[in-house]
Amino acid sequence: MKEAIERLREIDREIYRLSEISAALGWDQETYMPPGALNDRAEQQSIVEGMIHERITSAEVGNILEKLGVDLENLSADLVIDGLEEIDNAFVREIARFYKRETKLPKKLVEEYAREASISQSRWVEARKASDFSIFKPHLEKVLSLKCEIADLIGYEKERYDALLDSYEPWMKTEELLSVFERFEGRIKEFVKRIVASGKKVNNDFLYRSFDRKKQEEFGRFILGEMGFDFERGRLDVSAHPFTTSLGFADVRLTTRYNEKDFKSGLFGIIHEGGHGLYEQGFSEKLIGILADGTSMGIHESQSRMWENLVGRSLPFWKAYFPKLKETFPGELSDVSLEDFYRGINEITPSLIRVEADEVTYNLHIIIRFKLERELLNGKLKVQDLPEAWNSEYSGLLGIKPPNDADGVLQDIHWSHGYFGYFPTYSLGNLYSAQFFAKMKSEIPGLEDEIGKGNLQVVLSWLREKIHRHGRVYPATKLCMEVTGETLDPDYFMKYLEGKYQDIY
Amino acid sequence: MKEAIERLREIDREIYRLSEISAALGWDQETYMPPGALNDRAEQQSIVEGMIHERITSAEVGNILEKLGVDLENLSADLVIDGLEEIDNAFVREIARFYKRETKLPKKLVEEYAREASISQSRWVEARKASDFSIFKPHLEKVLSLKCEIADLIGYEKERYDALLDSYEPWMKTEELLSVFERFEGRIKEFVKRIVASGKKVNNDFLYRSFDRKKQEEFGRFILGEMGFDFERGRLDVSAHPFTTSLGFADVRLTTRYNEKDFKSGLFGIIHEGGHGLYEQGFSEKLIGILADGTSMGIHESQSRMWENLVGRSLPFWKAYFPKLKETFPGELSDVSLEDFYRGINEITPSLIRVEADEVTYNLHIIIRFKLERELLNGKLKVQDLPEAWNSEYSGLLGIKPPNDADGVLQDIHWSHGYFGYFPTYSLGNLYSAQFFAKMKSEIPGLEDEIGKGNLQVVLSWLREKIHRHGRVYPATKLCMEVTGETLDPDYFMKYLEGKYQDIY
Repeated sequence: MKEAIERLREIDREIYRLSEISAALGWDQETYMPPGALNDRAEQQSIVEGMIHERITSAEVGNILEKLGVDLENLSADLVIDGLEEIDNAFVREIARFYKRETKLPKKLVEEYAREASISQSRWVEARKASDFSIFKPHLEKVLSLKCEIADLIGYEKERYDALLDSYEPWMKTEELLSVFERFEGRIKEFVKRIVASGKKVNNDFLYRSFDRKKQEEFGRFILGEMGFDFERGRLDVSAHPFTTSLGFADVRLTTRYNEKDFKSGLFGIIHEGGHGLYEQGFSEKLIGILADGTSMGIHESQSRMWENLVGRSLPFWKAYFPKLKETFPGELSDVSLEDFYRGINEITPSLIRVEADEVTYNLHIIIRFKLERELLNGKLKVQDLPEAWNSEYSGLLGIKPPNDADGVLQDIHWSHGYFGYFPTYSLGNLYSAQFFAKMKSEIPGLEDEIGKGNLQVVLSWLREKIHRHGRVYPATKLCMEVTGETLDPDYFMKYLEGKYQDIY
Repeated sequence: MKEAIERLREIDREIYRLSEISAALGWDQETYMPPGALNDRAEQQSIVEGMIHERITSAEVGNILEKLGVDLENLSADLVIDGLEEIDNAFVREIARFYKRETKLPKKLVEEYAREASISQSRWVEARKASDFSIFKPHLEKVLSLKCEIADLIGYEKERYDALLDSYEPWMKTEELLSVFERFEGRIKEFVKRIVASGKKVNNDFLYRSFDRKKQEEFGRFILGEMGFDFERGRLDVSAHPFTTSLGFADVRLTTRYNEKDFKSGLFGIIHEGGHGLYEQGFSEKLIGILADGTSMGIHESQSRMWENLVGRSLPFWKAYFPKLKETFPGELSDVSLEDFYRGINEITPSLIRVEADEVTYNLHIIIRFKLERELLNGKLKVQDLPEAWNSEYSGLLGIKPPNDADGVLQDIHWSHGYFGYFPTYSLGNLYSAQFFAKMKSEIPGLEDEIGKGNLQVVLSWLREKIHRHGRVYPATKLCMEVTGETLDPDYFMKYLEGKYQDIY
């Protein structure tokens, strides 16, 4: 048994390194790659993904799993193999999950998908620049059709969405997701409506003065350092769409983008990605391999959204850092008080761009995407009708119509990669983040005072201990139970919003 | 037969993509990788190199070569397989060469070498920064001992150096190299001696005024554009040591470094790497695979050295571009005339740093390295004695003693990667460049006038047609014969120097 696990670890180590290589190629593509290299990169990604597929689906892996007595047909988050310690048990569970999924896909399809996704992503950048959906359309169609094929091969009981959601939020079914959304969708819409109806306005014109790009970056790096991001083991760069990726166990790369006319864009992008980055830098070294990863995208987003909103948009945080910000931008912010700044960055207002939305209306952006991508997958919506459907949803739910494709249907990178089923994890992240933060507050007396003193280390230490170091050892629901003693409960998020915004609105 | 070649091409295509991936990882390591990621990267490189090795040494490749009737024992640059067209013939020759070499090495050794070379390269960066050879010493020892093991496994008739030289200058033996060096080593030493003895001084203090880094970069990019470098299919970045690498057929990356106190360093680094880059961007698309590469490093260096020196340090070149340079640096160069500038950048003076040396004394730097690395390989010199040997050679041949390791034995990246046998190709490059340029001049009437008008396209077109597009189809000696009608003759280089420097000194 020990020998079998050892051998599996060897195979896993190679797969892990290949995944890092794929991440390196992906990072480069979105940061520095010259545009002409698109086809080269697509070929390279296709080869690497093919190799990963070959390794995880090898007969040897199948034999070892069989020898270990894993019942692939009834694989579940609760898999227990007698005689294995917790980490080894989780390791076998995740390998089995990966094996089960990949063995259903032919290598050719995996390679084709990798190639098309790589090309499609580049075309999306181009289309977004030109604000022209038609450039992107044929590629999105191709990627969507490949994803449908993949979902059908993987299989599902109720709907295609299940098969894809599972790659971002392991073990979760669309049905459960819908039931979670049911418990907060109405309340969040109601909440937004109430605030809009109140007619109260927050003045934050000062956020749209001109903020020097270099200084924004300098301040962003300072904040990342304060959060505990280790620049010896990571970087910050610029890309069309902010993201975080790991090119190695000790190589976590964040990106953001800067807008000189909107202060929020760059900094809150950095804090958000910083939250992801801290999770990635926090896995226990003994997990290196398939377990050294976020346990679900919902949990991953809980880390980014917590730092961005519950910490980064809190009054204590700015009590600590507003003086430094004013030092960095003396001309731009000299006439702004801490309280006005705090209110300014917490304005709730329907807006066009998801990543720049306030933490309340943000969820409406997710609701729209979740709905549209489900319709795309079950064939109710055609790609050609997507821009119109997008605009009509925005008009309906947020009351604003995107003036162009770039700020509308082309704003997010996800679909270009074929990441259908990803978006809802952002809202799950919001929900988890509030529940985790409530627990943290109850366990750390004076938490807000510490944040107010710029001691963000208390936050990071708690997260490291409770969440980060475990990587994928606990599936999301189990982790939530371990950390908070409860299952996911949207109440925490709604209470957090109500408490915060009654002071502001 | 056609089928066999087709299958070989498939295998080659995968190897080619894997080599590009290795190049991508290498490029990232030297430009943007955070220092903590060293071990991750070494593991990744080790896996990729292991995969390349596995593919090229597969029984299938051996069988195909046998079926094609390739006699591996007597493989030569003149291999002719009946019934094959020129390109297919060259393709089989290069695959056979690679196969023969790699089958002699166990995969474990290839992986270990890749890992150690990656680590060693990083330690070299560190050591150079700290100007402390002792940081680098154990890694150089390790890499040297692995390279000796590799050379012994590959085999050689006369000396270890043969086995390594062959990877940079295919088919060339140390003996031939020595005979080429014999025909110019004495003359070049004599030439330097004469100039130093003449007591004539060139005034170029103005090159060491303060040149803004950003503006240097801007001007460098402008010149690259003028040379015909395609930024859609390439990039320019900064690294500790200038280099060129291809991450894809359409993805050629150059690096340089800037010194605000020495104008020559950044720009001539850019022109040099630009010469490499143009070669890499000029391979015919039908060669994609093992033939889409420089045919030897000597030929590769002929391209970089030609652009750097025969073009970039010529009077016609600066007739075209000095006005633009003065515009870029009005304060710094307003009092400098074209002629003074031309003389200034062509000062011949013994100096410490190879890549910043003038085109004459440059060869003395090579002679020293060639001698020392041969001694390292045949065991006559120990790594621990290298800094002293280095300094003593510099005192003897150039009359200057490096004040520290950074500007002495640690200045070059090559040995850190285990590139023993590479340095002589720079001098070969100088020799080839002069011979090619003489031919170009004889074939293009008014060549210098065209350069003087900033029409560098005539140079590039000639190189594309005669050299670039052929990639590795012709081995170096054959290419030289095809282009110039003669074998390599150091006379061209000496005549070029004599003609140029009698005007200056």
